[in-house]
Amino acid sequence: MPIIAPSLLSADFSNLRHELKDVSSAPWLHLDVMDGHFVPNISFGMPVIKALRPHSQAKFDVHLMIEPVDPYLEATAQAGADHITVHCENNPHLYRTLQTIRSLGCKAGVAICPATPPEALSQIMDIVDIILVMSVNPGFGGQSFLESQLPKIRTLADMIKQSGRSIILGVDGGIDQNTAPRVLAAGATMLVAGSSIFGQPDRKAAIEGLVKLSHVS
Amino acid sequence: MPIIAPSLLSADFSNLRHELKDVSSAPWLHLDVMDGHFVPNISFGMPVIKALRPHSQAKFDVHLMIEPVDPYLEATAQAGADHITVHCENNPHLYRTLQTIRSLGCKAGVAICPATPPEALSQIMDIVDIILVMSVNPGFGGQSFLESQLPKIRTLADMIKQSGRSIILGVDGGIDQNTAPRVLAAGATMLVAGSSIFGQPDRKAAIEGLVKLSHVS
Amino acid sequence: MPIIAPSLLSADFSNLRHELKDVSSAPWLHLDVMDGHFVPNISFGMPVIKALRPHSQAKFDVHLMIEPVDPYLEATAQAGADHITVHCENNPHLYRTLQTIRSLGCKAGVAICPATPPEALSQIMDIVDIILVMSVNPGFGGQSFLESQLPKIRTLADMIKQSGRSIILGVDGGIDQNTAPRVLAAGATMLVAGSSIFGQPDRKAAIEGLVKLSHVS
Amino acid sequence: MPIIAPSLLSADFSNLRHELKDVSSAPWLHLDVMDGHFVPNISFGMPVIKALRPHSQAKFDVHLMIEPVDPYLEATAQAGADHITVHCENNPHLYRTLQTIRSLGCKAGVAICPATPPEALSQIMDIVDIILVMSVNPGFGGQSFLESQLPKIRTLADMIKQSGRSIILGVDGGIDQNTAPRVLAAGATMLVAGSSIFGQPDRKAAIEGLVKLSHVS
Amino acid sequence: MPIIAPSLLSADFSNLRHELKDVSSAPWLHLDVMDGHFVPNISFGMPVIKALRPHSQAKFDVHLMIEPVDPYLEATAQAGADHITVHCENNPHLYRTLQTIRSLGCKAGVAICPATPPEALSQIMDIVDIILVMSVNPGFGGQSFLESQLPKIRTLADMIKQSGRSIILGVDGGIDQNTAPRVLAAGATMLVAGSSIFGQPDRKAAIEGLVKLSHVS
Amino acid sequence: MPIIAPSLLSADFSNLRHELKDVSSAPWLHLDVMDGHFVPNISFGMPVIKALRPHSQAKFDVHLMIEPVDPYLEATAQAGADHITVHCENNPHLYRTLQTIRSLGCKAGVAICPATPPEALSQIMDIVDIILVMSVNPGFGGQSFLESQLPKIRTLADMIKQSGRSIILGVDGGIDQNTAPRVLAAGATMLVAGSSIFGQPDRKAAIEGLVKLSHVS
Repeated sequence: MPIIAPSLLSADFSNLRHELKDVSSAPWLHLDVMDGHFVPNISFGMPVIKALRPHSQAKFDVHLMIEPVDPYLEATAQAGADHITVHCENNPHLYRTLQTIRSLGCKAGVAICPATPPEALSQIMDIVDIILVMSVNPGFGGQSFLESQLPKIRTLADMIKQSGRSIILGVDGGIDQNTAPRVLAAGATMLVAGSSIFGQPDRKAAIEGLVKLSHVS
Repeated sequence: MPIIAPSLLSADFSNLRHELKDVSSAPWLHLDVMDGHFVPNISFGMPVIKALRPHSQAKFDVHLMIEPVDPYLEATAQAGADHITVHCENNPHLYRTLQTIRSLGCKAGVAICPATPPEALSQIMDIVDIILVMSVNPGFGGQSFLESQLPKIRTLADMIKQSGRSIILGVDGGIDQNTAPRVLAAGATMLVAGSSIFGQPDRKAAIEGLVKLSHVS
Repeated sequence: MPIIAPSLLSADFSNLRHELKDVSSAPWLHLDVMDGHFVPNISFGMPVIKALRPHSQAKFDVHLMIEPVDPYLEATAQAGADHITVHCENNPHLYRTLQTIRSLGCKAGVAICPATPPEALSQIMDIVDIILVMSVNPGFGGQSFLESQLPKIRTLADMIKQSGRSIILGVDGGIDQNTAPRVLAAGATMLVAGSSIFGQPDRKAAIEGLVKLSHVS
Repeated sequence: MPIIAPSLLSADFSNLRHELKDVSSAPWLHLDVMDGHFVPNISFGMPVIKALRPHSQAKFDVHLMIEPVDPYLEATAQAGADHITVHCENNPHLYRTLQTIRSLGCKAGVAICPATPPEALSQIMDIVDIILVMSVNPGFGGQSFLESQLPKIRTLADMIKQSGRSIILGVDGGIDQNTAPRVLAAGATMLVAGSSIFGQPDRKAAIEGLVKLSHVS
Repeated sequence: MPIIAPSLLSADFSNLRHELKDVSSAPWLHLDVMDGHFVPNISFGMPVIKALRPHSQAKFDVHLMIEPVDPYLEATAQAGADHITVHCENNPHLYRTLQTIRSLGCKAGVAICPATPPEALSQIMDIVDIILVMSVNPGFGGQSFLESQLPKIRTLADMIKQSGRSIILGVDGGIDQNTAPRVLAAGATMLVAGSSIFGQPDRKAAIEGLVKLSHVS
Repeated sequence: MPIIAPSLLSADFSNLRHELKDVSSAPWLHLDVMDGHFVPNISFGMPVIKALRPHSQAKFDVHLMIEPVDPYLEATAQAGADHITVHCENNPHLYRTLQTIRSLGCKAGVAICPATPPEALSQIMDIVDIILVMSVNPGFGGQSFLESQLPKIRTLADMIKQSGRSIILGVDGGIDQNTAPRVLAAGATMLVAGSSIFGQPDRKAAIEGLVKLSHVS
């Protein structure tokens, strides 16, 4: 049964308290922090996360689409993150970054962009808790799922098996009723979903719909 | 009578629709976009501005604390900004930036940090619509007003007079019932106020209180 | 029969109209744009490409040795590029860059520096149209061919075969009558040649000479 | 009698040898090197300058619109520059840069952008040979002259007088028969002209026309 | 009587304990930290300062020729700095930087490069403890004193007088028996001296020689 | 018998001449230059290396933890380096960097961070002289050895064997009597040791102790 993480990027920012209540059946909430440098968009940051923290029981799964990332790890943890996921690209000291995240009491995640080979993660399998495959280019919501990422999901699922560790394998981008079964079949155990949850009138049903897909696949 | 611009940075991000209604008596809403590069904090960006636009009649007075700023001018205008204020520091092409803002149909503002001399603005007085004196270091809410900025406000008020143009002179940082009269006496015509409005139980009264100060000064 | 792309970098910049006429038997013209940041040289850019466009029937094969590359894709296409080749190094969002190039109506190419493993391209084989192996360090003309790049050409030729797509495999750097047969034997289908064409008195013969090598190899 | 410097940026890059001959009555040739970082355009660099050097008797007045500038001073001198003009913006070590240019045997120039106050040059008046006021935003040809730069020209002319040194005061941007008399009246002694020379059928006459304006003013 | 600050950059790095003993008559020790980015040299950093701290009673007057400077303020204080001097160039948030230095328990200094006008410091006169005029270009020892900096020293001495605060005015670069009297006459109250102290066989006498100059001037 | 390279970073910087004498039985001296950009620490640079050169017979094995690295290669060689080791991360032109180091008369080394896969070095095996596996995150002394680096050492030892060249395989970080046997067993032929040499009262014995481990393994 996959973990479902509704993505705040598709929520109504004028009414977040209500939006959070509406997706309270999901165990995680995915929060994309964008700085306009790693990606060409500025979404939201620590003050927003902090304001939401009291209004949700979900694990705050914070995805830092920023560079450099190290100066903001502590502030992210203090704002209320349970997980901090950073990018493997452009970070020569990724191992140290993951060590730091853990020392802050958070689960340490690594996100991987569409063009990056899965082998880029081969040296951090002993320390990572969450791997997040980007199935669209990070930066904006509402993009179409990239088929080319399915083999990468399979390779990473194998690498996780070989590591002997219980690493969560998430997929982020274009996840809906059509694409979810395929990424689950490829080995994903967590699904980030934006418009396919927040874009629906009944968000609870949308979450349940994605959970049930795992039985099919 | 000074223009009052409540600063969203001090609002409750979990409930912005309500916060906006609560300060609807103010003609402007001040929105601080921070990218974690020009200032050491990431606040919020275009998706948040866009979501708020339908819920307010106020002029959206967007202060871009980001660098570089040029790549985000168009997206800021499209998100719903009425004014776009950029920093004079670290921008060799400030004149072009202001031209671009105007070509996007927005009022063009320039913010100036505490350490920057007012003479830094001498060459853009023919094109600027709003000058914003930072009376605290940009990046975080809740700081104390810097006395050292009062002479700068006076100098800029003189420069505006000499220009013969009707440039708005705003002050941002530590503005409350004690400091507002002094910045107004120094020549300010617009006040950005964060905690002294959103930190009060009766925000409408807090706005009125700041407006009335102009009669005293 | 390999595609021959004379490299403008070795032409006489004081007389480009004539130089273009002199290599008009070649189907492509290779144009190296350098920004002094990705490589330690500034060559030429959009205004030069634009000026040449009316004087050649060749496909303009523009190689952007610049970083960041995304801000200049549109201007490059508008200047007259038919192909836009970007580097795989230092670009976490390479997939998006290639999508953008195609959306501009150009063929999308990826260049790879001598130290970069061919596996770096494994995730973009479904979207790339041209792969360009640098057999010298990019930045200056007139360098010697690096033997160490031959295995990489073979690996990439295999990867192309496995992709099932008709991706052009070019080689750039130190290509002449001695090196061309070996890169063709390794699987190259396109040759960029600078001094071995423009450095010859009879450029047409030089181009023909390179074309004929494919029969030998 | 002002020095006239035709700007290569407005010439036909496909036929530069001819263009140079056509403006051979002008004592200087102005060459704008752009790197796509200091300005949002990449024009041309050292290989182009080198190729043109044998075809002109004019002083090569090279304006480096690049940052950082120090790594390219030596290559610029070697390519054939007689003067090297750098920007005062974003260069904390401007004094050292000017010392270096002189040590390379070139005249040392400083360019100043529209938004920069003339006082920014107060500390280098003992070492600078050429001051170049940008009367448009650097980056592209064909822009309109900025009226706001006239007082700056006057202030700089005064600063030059006070220095007691024979510093050349150039103006670059939107210079034509209408604007030239005013900048000359304000104290300019050198005029960079692009489209008002290269855009005319008779370039020699266009150059003479600009020279004669000094008698009127 | 001027404060004399021998500059470690001219000491013998293989024998620093002895060098420190040899200049123990001076009340300050000047330490130039260079990062290879703000200046084109890497000198030494925190581990060296820390190792020297137990071997000197002098005030450690640390000059950070680095950028960005904010991430290293705390480590510099912890390594043993008594004063931390930062550059005014390229730091839009200079006021905050000085506040931070004071909050770390150190005196806050500002250094100014040869090309920078003294007016650049007009807005931080209420918070700065030390002003350091660079009379050579920062980065290397052994350069010649720049005459052009004398008027700047006078202007800054006046600005200090007008501030009513007891700010120390130091000069750094080319200070010896010939230049010291002139900078003292211009208003300097502190002298950084490198080779004119460490380059002498009798360093104690060299220090005394510089101190006595104040009587003459 | 492994090469032992005592790491200066753990020496007493106040007394380096003595420290160098104390480790004179080691054939190499390892010098970590840090610029505060590639790693979050500034250690020491060229002036320190230069000062030490006359006081040691050891090969100066300089590890440049800086970025960009190319501008400092020549100064490093001139300061007295015998080997120059650069990082493979964030350097698209690594091949050229290694060529440059050799052209300066030094052995060319490549260091690899904990998160970087060994395959990143596959294309430079024909030109590299030393490979240095970081078994801690570069930046500070005194960290614990990372077990996860042992398979990487084995892979690189295999890659070296396949290359047919006599490349030295060093390991840096947490090397002591416990970890050394394992890295030697994995294929290392050179050991950088900091606190396990300089932290001991008898440094000569500590060096001998590490040398003897090769017999055991």
